[in-house]
Amino acid sequence: MSIPQKQLTIGLFGFGVVGEGLYKVLNQTASLNATIRKVCIKHPGKPRNAPAELFTTDPSVLLNDPEINVIVELIDDADAAWTIVSSALSSGKAVVSANKKLIAERLSDLLERQRVHNTPFLYEAACCASIPVIRNLEEYYDNDLLQGLQGIVNGSTNYILTRVAEDGLNFGQALKLAQEKGFAESDPTLDIEGIDAVNKLTILLTHAYGLVSHPSELVHSGIHKLHSEDAVFAKEKQYDIKLVAQARKLKDGKVAAFVLPQFVRKDSLLADVRNEYNGMIIESGLAEEQFFYGKGAGGFPTASAVLSDLSALRYDYRYEYKKLYRETKSVLTDDFYLRVYVSFDSLAQVPHALFERIDEWSSNDRRCTISGILHFSRLRDAWWKQYNTSLVLYPEAIVEKEDFTSKPKAAQLVDILSAESV
Amino acid sequence: MSIPQKQLTIGLFGFGVVGEGLYKVLNQTASLNATIRKVCIKHPGKPRNAPAELFTTDPSVLLNDPEINVIVELIDDADAAWTIVSSALSSGKAVVSANKKLIAERLSDLLERQRVHNTPFLYEAACCASIPVIRNLEEYYDNDLLQGLQGIVNGSTNYILTRVAEDGLNFGQALKLAQEKGFAESDPTLDIEGIDAVNKLTILLTHAYGLVSHPSELVHSGIHKLHSEDAVFAKEKQYDIKLVAQARKLKDGKVAAFVLPQFVRKDSLLADVRNEYNGMIIESGLAEEQFFYGKGAGGFPTASAVLSDLSALRYDYRYEYKKLYRETKSVLTDDFYLRVYVSFDSLAQVPHALFERIDEWSSNDRRCTISGILHFSRLRDAWWKQYNTSLVLYPEAIVEKEDFTSKPKAAQLVDILSAESV
Repeated sequence: MSIPQKQLTIGLFGFGVVGEGLYKVLNQTASLNATIRKVCIKHPGKPRNAPAELFTTDPSVLLNDPEINVIVELIDDADAAWTIVSSALSSGKAVVSANKKLIAERLSDLLERQRVHNTPFLYEAACCASIPVIRNLEEYYDNDLLQGLQGIVNGSTNYILTRVAEDGLNFGQALKLAQEKGFAESDPTLDIEGIDAVNKLTILLTHAYGLVSHPSELVHSGIHKLHSEDAVFAKEKQYDIKLVAQARKLKDGKVAAFVLPQFVRKDSLLADVRNEYNGMIIESGLAEEQFFYGKGAGGFPTASAVLSDLSALRYDYRYEYKKLYRETKSVLTDDFYLRVYVSFDSLAQVPHALFERIDEWSSNDRRCTISGILHFSRLRDAWWKQYNTSLVLYPEAIVEKEDFTSKPKAAQLVDILSAESV
Repeated sequence: MSIPQKQLTIGLFGFGVVGEGLYKVLNQTASLNATIRKVCIKHPGKPRNAPAELFTTDPSVLLNDPEINVIVELIDDADAAWTIVSSALSSGKAVVSANKKLIAERLSDLLERQRVHNTPFLYEAACCASIPVIRNLEEYYDNDLLQGLQGIVNGSTNYILTRVAEDGLNFGQALKLAQEKGFAESDPTLDIEGIDAVNKLTILLTHAYGLVSHPSELVHSGIHKLHSEDAVFAKEKQYDIKLVAQARKLKDGKVAAFVLPQFVRKDSLLADVRNEYNGMIIESGLAEEQFFYGKGAGGFPTASAVLSDLSALRYDYRYEYKKLYRETKSVLTDDFYLRVYVSFDSLAQVPHALFERIDEWSSNDRRCTISGILHFSRLRDAWWKQYNTSLVLYPEAIVEKEDFTSKPKAAQLVDILSAESV
């Protein structure tokens, strides 16, 4: 066709698994019209599978090279990445990044830089790696009809949960196995505490609803508080436990968003997402449920997403953030209810006054569990992250204000609690 | 952002379920900057849920209106649609269509019109309705690394196959049920003979591999030849039967492509595609298997895809057909083998000389079944569509030339056949 294709001259930061994978693929894919001119690395001593003259340790060699029109940022350090990305955007170089921490934490700044300097910044790899969720939310679900999304966006925790459910391992054993297999970092905090997932949800909210938030504002948890007894409970009830990042437009037009462990039914699409895979359900008013599934992490899947971003830059693609720059803005809300399961070490710890309704409970020597309904704002307090408490959502967890009918709390439980606490 | 957004003034052909759905949604979605100026219909007498002055029966009113910059074509008749679409493209109006028959059968002509007149022609709705497969193949899998795709692209046949497998209906009963539920047309030929599916595969091949073919060139079948005994065989072997449209790049770089019924394992992604849903697995060298799933037919899912195409036109998006206009072209091949199951009314009908290898067979009063390996070119002959023959692929059906090791045909079968045919 007659569309001019840009020649991409790339300055690459980082030459780890993703960076080297990208280098190899670009060498094999002449049709992309893209060449890596220079690679900035931290450790010049390491042996590299590329000519020595390709490398430098000086960022300014790349950032000040007028021939370089694209910076690809693939480094671990979010602060150093910010310096690189912001400088590149300011000097009119397009940027491709896979750095979810950077993007989620500096989202406003990055949006402002793009707006002021009119420079494209693409980061499909930052969310579910190879699965094109950002591009599809931005382009394909570009209307007012997006009802919600529910995603398994962290492969490490999903691998651990799968091994616990399928092999009967405890959480510690499953984490160790995940680390041995390379599916979890030696410091797994970011993954198992849900921080990686909430970073991704922060990014998704911008493309799904035009919402700009900070990860710290979003209620989130990981799988680090779950107990073997919770897994046993799930099994008895024929559920799987998944760590789900979700957002939903409520009837009042406001958006509910959080990352929490959730029971999912065996026949649900999310239950089919096993091991290190990611999957996302996108619900729209017209198309109903759509499901995207694939590898959510790893060098090659990440390189695949970076490659697609580069390909898009060839014809000057950029995120328009259409929903963000629209006249009627979306806002987040805490004003809804959740169906939850909470387990505690002892009955005395149960903050029963916080529950709007208690539907079911059990208690044995080791754990006490409560199923009931909480107002979402209750999760703004610390109680459910203290002691050994664990909290898991039920399927279809969100109960809208209009649909909630309060019922008297189960009198027996109050009796038990009074008896225990005397 | 600073990107100018086009105002879309639409001339709509057809006001059936999709057309009326689109009209309603556009009225509710001011942010799209799109208005329907005129609707061309065939039957002016029918009551419509829109102002009378919106309608005309004269196509030229839309096609000659200089204010109209987008034609949306949603009519049944592929010949009339060709006149409309070709005329619109020639006069520089962008076109959005959901007409897979038109697009598949007139693909070369339509590509030529786009090229000559440099006019965008979008048709996401023509393939898997609301699931954005075309856009993703075109944009996101825009490199040389696409290994293959396998899709359930026809909701009617998938509904029938699901009811046969899950409720034990025979194919006739399941078809009747599908028609009652609105999942199959009163004339279901296009669906059950695999013609709708091969039309979609024709379109997919262009965006996946830059291949331009005619549906009649592609080996295809539907589910109309399947027998209850085939369903019993599948059940015994723990398989589901699905009608799969697939394409795969072989080791020699050539592409295998066909639509045939296939046994799929219960734990495979395609087995999870039930009832009237569609699903597609896209395999790439970097990202491995990705899976897209959703509603593949129906008024609203189709309107959803049309809406996304309209949204894309606002910033002058068009398919670039990058893989088609690339220097190294892909070509189709017949030179590979398939693992097949074939069932016949009687042993005398079995063309055993056609098989490269026979692995398993059975015979009773009603049916005789053979499992073995055929060269793909054997499916260019009519034998497997004659009599009551049915043919179903095994999972991982394609055997490449290099991987095929011929084995002596099972001597016993030859004995049986000789005994039967004397």
